[in-house]
Amino acid sequence: MNNTTAIAPPSVKHATPDHPIHDLLAQRWSPYSFSDRPVPDDHLASLFEAARWSASSYNEQPWTYFVATKQDPGEFERLLSCLVPANQAWAKAAPVLILTVVSLRFAQSGKENRAAVHDLGLASASLSMEATARGLSVHQMIGILPDRARELYQIPAHFEAWTAMAVGSAGNGEAQPAAWQERDRAPRQRKPADEFVFTGAWGHPAALVAPAAPVSVATD
Amino acid sequence: MNNTTAIAPPSVKHATPDHPIHDLLAQRWSPYSFSDRPVPDDHLASLFEAARWSASSYNEQPWTYFVATKQDPGEFERLLSCLVPANQAWAKAAPVLILTVVSLRFAQSGKENRAAVHDLGLASASLSMEATARGLSVHQMIGILPDRARELYQIPAHFEAWTAMAVGSAGNGEAQPAAWQERDRAPRQRKPADEFVFTGAWGHPAALVAPAAPVSVATD
Repeated sequence: MNNTTAIAPPSVKHATPDHPIHDLLAQRWSPYSFSDRPVPDDHLASLFEAARWSASSYNEQPWTYFVATKQDPGEFERLLSCLVPANQAWAKAAPVLILTVVSLRFAQSGKENRAAVHDLGLASASLSMEATARGLSVHQMIGILPDRARELYQIPAHFEAWTAMAVGSAGNGEAQPAAWQERDRAPRQRKPADEFVFTGAWGHPAALVAPAAPVSVATD
Repeated sequence: MNNTTAIAPPSVKHATPDHPIHDLLAQRWSPYSFSDRPVPDDHLASLFEAARWSASSYNEQPWTYFVATKQDPGEFERLLSCLVPANQAWAKAAPVLILTVVSLRFAQSGKENRAAVHDLGLASASLSMEATARGLSVHQMIGILPDRARELYQIPAHFEAWTAMAVGSAGNGEAQPAAWQERDRAPRQRKPADEFVFTGAWGHPAALVAPAAPVSVATD
């Protein structure tokens, strides 16, 4: 898997938080461009181990992950084919693809698990955090073909393919169409916290996230 | 909010991972017992800021959080009343309660957002990670009363209360019923990774998470 082109340093696209947050959270972002440098198996094992120790309702652990690396091109192509074409276009550059599957019912009782999809999110966030800690990037996608995944991987009833992820080192975008390069260069943007942290009633911002009083700064 | 009893040090209940994971992920667990020590507002602001910078499909940011602290006992009681009674029983000891709400449709198009509940999980995992980094604990719950929450907080159509969280410093369990104390003392357990990390077909463990060959260790 050696290649003769220079490998770009991991892109850095730091959040611009209004209140301090941990570096691992500030540094996480979702690149469209990946270097072709392979991800060592011990890193991948730690990513799944991070997901494993996530919280879940009744400790149900409703998540399943399929993994494919470019070391096995046939398997990589199979997993890639479970993404919608618009995601295949950029995700094919990543050295590792992951498909997530969620159990929508409790294994013991067969009852609906209302927390299942949420808890898949918890586990995948932990996986993503572990990746950041290892200098890797994760780009998650909802745009997949669940029926194709069910057929290819014999996913049982009451389980459902839900998301996919591209995993690797962020690239320099050279191999990507210009539109993706632009997205990778655009600054990260979020709603202000007072639009989604409320107290007492819908639309009433919690005082603790109120924007700080404006500071007069010379800007000439 | 002073109290005369000694505050127990935060309980530590480290994961026992088979592969190394970041300390913040290994240390996170969900206590039933909380100290009554208040959480400073600047910590809470950073928790929500961590959620804010989470990933979401189309950057939709479908999460909303309601927060209530014991500094406002009336508001705390209102939020507490949105939990099922079994959760109220232990969560009432926490200094902070949070209710999460998710937008099930895209704000612009009104179309269903299949990623919404998953992405709420991503954001709440980031919130929880930031809490761990600050020596705080988060215990998430699916057991809430969404209809009561809708009525109390005027939650609009197409939004849905989904989870709640107790937030604070893990306690020593003295104020809790014995059953909760036992849960807090029990070791953390998870399925082995080869039961949920597959390659190629359902039930086929990925080689990279295969258990390491047993090592002979003198244990006398």
